[in-house]
Amino acid sequence: MTLTQVAREAGVSVSTVSRYLRGQLKVQDKTAQRIDNAVRTTGYRVDRGARRDGFIAMVVAELTNPFYASLAEECSTLAAEAGYSLLIAASGRQHARENALSAQLSSTDSIAGLIFAGMHRTNPELERAIAGGLPVVVIDEEVDLSPSTAVSTVTVDNYGGAYQATSYLATLGHRRIAHVGGPPGLLTSEDRLRGYRDALAAHGLAADETLVLRGPYTEEYGASVVPYLTRVEAPTAVFVGSDIVAVGLLSGAELQGLRIPEDLSVVGCDGIQLGQWLRPRLTTLAQPVRALAHAALEALGRVIDSPGETTRQVLPLQLVVRGSAVAPRTTPEA
Amino acid sequence: MTLTQVAREAGVSVSTVSRYLRGQLKVQDKTAQRIDNAVRTTGYRVDRGARRDGFIAMVVAELTNPFYASLAEECSTLAAEAGYSLLIAASGRQHARENALSAQLSSTDSIAGLIFAGMHRTNPELERAIAGGLPVVVIDEEVDLSPSTAVSTVTVDNYGGAYQATSYLATLGHRRIAHVGGPPGLLTSEDRLRGYRDALAAHGLAADETLVLRGPYTEEYGASVVPYLTRVEAPTAVFVGSDIVAVGLLSGAELQGLRIPEDLSVVGCDGIQLGQWLRPRLTTLAQPVRALAHAALEALGRVIDSPGETTRQVLPLQLVVRGSAVAPRTTPEA
Repeated sequence: MTLTQVAREAGVSVSTVSRYLRGQLKVQDKTAQRIDNAVRTTGYRVDRGARRDGFIAMVVAELTNPFYASLAEECSTLAAEAGYSLLIAASGRQHARENALSAQLSSTDSIAGLIFAGMHRTNPELERAIAGGLPVVVIDEEVDLSPSTAVSTVTVDNYGGAYQATSYLATLGHRRIAHVGGPPGLLTSEDRLRGYRDALAAHGLAADETLVLRGPYTEEYGASVVPYLTRVEAPTAVFVGSDIVAVGLLSGAELQGLRIPEDLSVVGCDGIQLGQWLRPRLTTLAQPVRALAHAALEALGRVIDSPGETTRQVLPLQLVVRGSAVAPRTTPEA
Repeated sequence: MTLTQVAREAGVSVSTVSRYLRGQLKVQDKTAQRIDNAVRTTGYRVDRGARRDGFIAMVVAELTNPFYASLAEECSTLAAEAGYSLLIAASGRQHARENALSAQLSSTDSIAGLIFAGMHRTNPELERAIAGGLPVVVIDEEVDLSPSTAVSTVTVDNYGGAYQATSYLATLGHRRIAHVGGPPGLLTSEDRLRGYRDALAAHGLAADETLVLRGPYTEEYGASVVPYLTRVEAPTAVFVGSDIVAVGLLSGAELQGLRIPEDLSVVGCDGIQLGQWLRPRLTTLAQPVRALAHAALEALGRVIDSPGETTRQVLPLQLVVRGSAVAPRTTPEA
């Protein structure tokens, strides 16, 4: 009961069916009849996408990470302004649930489109949903699709952002800069790692793989890396690939007598609201949450209006300088 | 296209229709035919509630408050375990959106039921949806309904919790205890205020209305009350009706040279995860988030299975003692 099936049945293109059903395309009587019959035969419900008072769905990896929560909240607000209601499904970072949700949402007629912000590189059901005509925009973390499946994406320049954050620390005078990155395999964390490495190289700093740590995006993980960062030949700065990991790191540092920023400069990533309420206030590479939400809804609107036409947008991350990163001490002890 | 309309059309009770459609009730052939015809005439889709692979909807006031975010995440996890997918809609704390969402969700056939965690006392569309047969459970903040409309609720004992938190501060030796409460009008914040006042009275402490402040549940509001709390005859302790307000208060206090807990003991409310990562770690009145989610889903299951039967559950809040509240100094300056 997708637009694709209607188009196949009617022997016309998906775009023709879509625009005809929305009253944007005049076709010959014979074609109109064929489409109308196909709609009837397949049981396709015209309201998907055509109704301006419908639902948009959004899949997010987890709501307990404030980055996703604020992204979902922002999309809700913008969707409401556009006359849609956003229905958010959290996958609990589970691959199986991301996949199952894609299937379930695609078979629901009242959903005009889907904004997908998952945490896994593969999703056969999402691919099937896109092929079946569900308007989809993938945001934040990209999904690997077969070459024949095109999808609109809105992502951020994680490479450029990490390069900028690491360069900032190098410019402050740091020579040993660590990186606490996200889970291996995710394009976002791989891109940030590349940006970190290239910035080190650009500043003539040796790459030291013992200074690269990777783990889940949790406060607990951030707290757990502190002992490692305080060993002999410790780094004087660290670029952390997630603000909630940085929150855990700040907290663990205080418990273990490591002063931030005096002993260790910290730059986070995401720009969660909370960062400005921490002591020290968190210097961070901020996600353009509002712009991301805005671009996602705009891209989805385009896919709904013109099925098959896809767009790719990459937004910049922005370094927000606060108090958690300073120049390194010039003497071993201040 | 609700169960009520089917029942009216068939001339039987809603409960009969519901159990018949779910295969739980054997009826006479004539009655079965009447119901089947009514289903056809009204276009009612049997899958609501009967399908174990359906959707449950949840309305929450805002996802940027970690309390709601973790409640929504917990409900998502438990719903997934029960074979449902949870679709969350955020109202942005807006009365109009809470109301509109209730109407929209009730007219969507693929929604088996609704968990409502709003922030306003009235909601005519929610009332209409309940009357129309949508299985609903109201959690956290109660909604005023007409006497003829019954709804299942799962709330927490805000009065008892506030009494406990305030008594704890009195027992530590504090005589001037302030309260930074939530917006007037909300039952939760009114109950907490009553609990605070009664605990003061029980400990023989005079009620001082200048020590009661009320405002929105935001970090900004928490930061803004600090100058007020440091004036002459300042309180030595404060019970804050929301952890995110306490986060702002802690941050504002540090900026203004007010030491916590030395100068001011702080007890928050909600038990957000972040509280344990703050310095000092936040003593708080924790919401039973997992138990709330569990009770909400159980209650919704009962309403789906037995329309018309409603339950009321009140869960306790739990004082979690950490580092932000201590005994007051015995001398003016330590």
